[in-house]
Amino acid sequence: MLRVATAECFTHGFVGREIHASASGYTGELGSEILGTELEGKVSVVAACFIPTVSGLRSLLGIDPPEPDEVSKSGAKAYREETDRKVAVTMARAVRERTGADVGIGTTAGIGRGAICLDDGEITLLGRTDVHANLLKPDERIRKRQLQGIKRSLVMFRAYFRGELDELLEEEWVEEVTRDLP
Amino acid sequence: MLRVATAECFTHGFVGREIHASASGYTGELGSEILGTELEGKVSVVAACFIPTVSGLRSLLGIDPPEPDEVSKSGAKAYREETDRKVAVTMARAVRERTGADVGIGTTAGIGRGAICLDDGEITLLGRTDVHANLLKPDERIRKRQLQGIKRSLVMFRAYFRGELDELLEEEWVEEVTRDLP
Repeated sequence: MLRVATAECFTHGFVGREIHASASGYTGELGSEILGTELEGKVSVVAACFIPTVSGLRSLLGIDPPEPDEVSKSGAKAYREETDRKVAVTMARAVRERTGADVGIGTTAGIGRGAICLDDGEITLLGRTDVHANLLKPDERIRKRQLQGIKRSLVMFRAYFRGELDELLEEEWVEEVTRDLP
Repeated sequence: MLRVATAECFTHGFVGREIHASASGYTGELGSEILGTELEGKVSVVAACFIPTVSGLRSLLGIDPPEPDEVSKSGAKAYREETDRKVAVTMARAVRERTGADVGIGTTAGIGRGAICLDDGEITLLGRTDVHANLLKPDERIRKRQLQGIKRSLVMFRAYFRGELDELLEEEWVEEVTRDLP
């Protein structure tokens, strides 16, 4: 069984929940048309963590993220897109290493289009949404960005699971950054 | 600000997500009629973790839970109700201590009505649902148990937040176990 762990901000834990639903043989609410029950009995979600705060990233994953550019009224961190890209990679790698999972997924989005990362220790994939939004000035774009972030994370994971990375990397929203990002 | 962290199994991280939504000033999907936006700017969710596996509890929370009575096809642990009660308390305390939050919430349900726990280091509240279900033989009761578990966890947290514990403890589904359970 492929073991997966997620550390999620703007996707609120839904990526891990939807993978767990498919792996358990029932369709989730948001990803059902993407995953169906194709992962049934073949994938195990070790943990799916929604971690909106810097202190949670420190205490649960043992990482030392950059100081947030802004902090929301509920204490959630907010980075600009370039920093989100780095933090998503750090989150994916840390949750994989901390839990001993085969694959880690990290997501974060403050000001900009956000970042989603999948890492298995050998390859690192980094994606984004098309939706510019601002966590500090929430409007309907926040929800739109979240939904696209969840769906693209599931598309990314499905391509990884199926061994269809070449097809995935033809999409303009995702790239391989194995050697490019720290 | 009151800092909250959750470690959830059968409630899939929804308890923490709904508290975060209220604290951020938007209504969640499931708990909106319970919390509204009453927590806005007064509560911070440090992390809300869905942890269905024993290995996730070990690696993320540093606890050593009992061996599961059964394991689902996606690797999720399943305990009987009496063990769920102990594990929920352990999860609530561990996620609070690990993250340095003020309040920890733990939930788990395998075979039986499940258990939900709130712990702040001084008081430990333990509740359950009314729905007998079996994670290994899923039917419509699984979803019913989950929904009631989420709602009762939010009711429990709201009573704690408002300082209305006496009223809460009149309900037959919840008790104080500060000194009774390890």
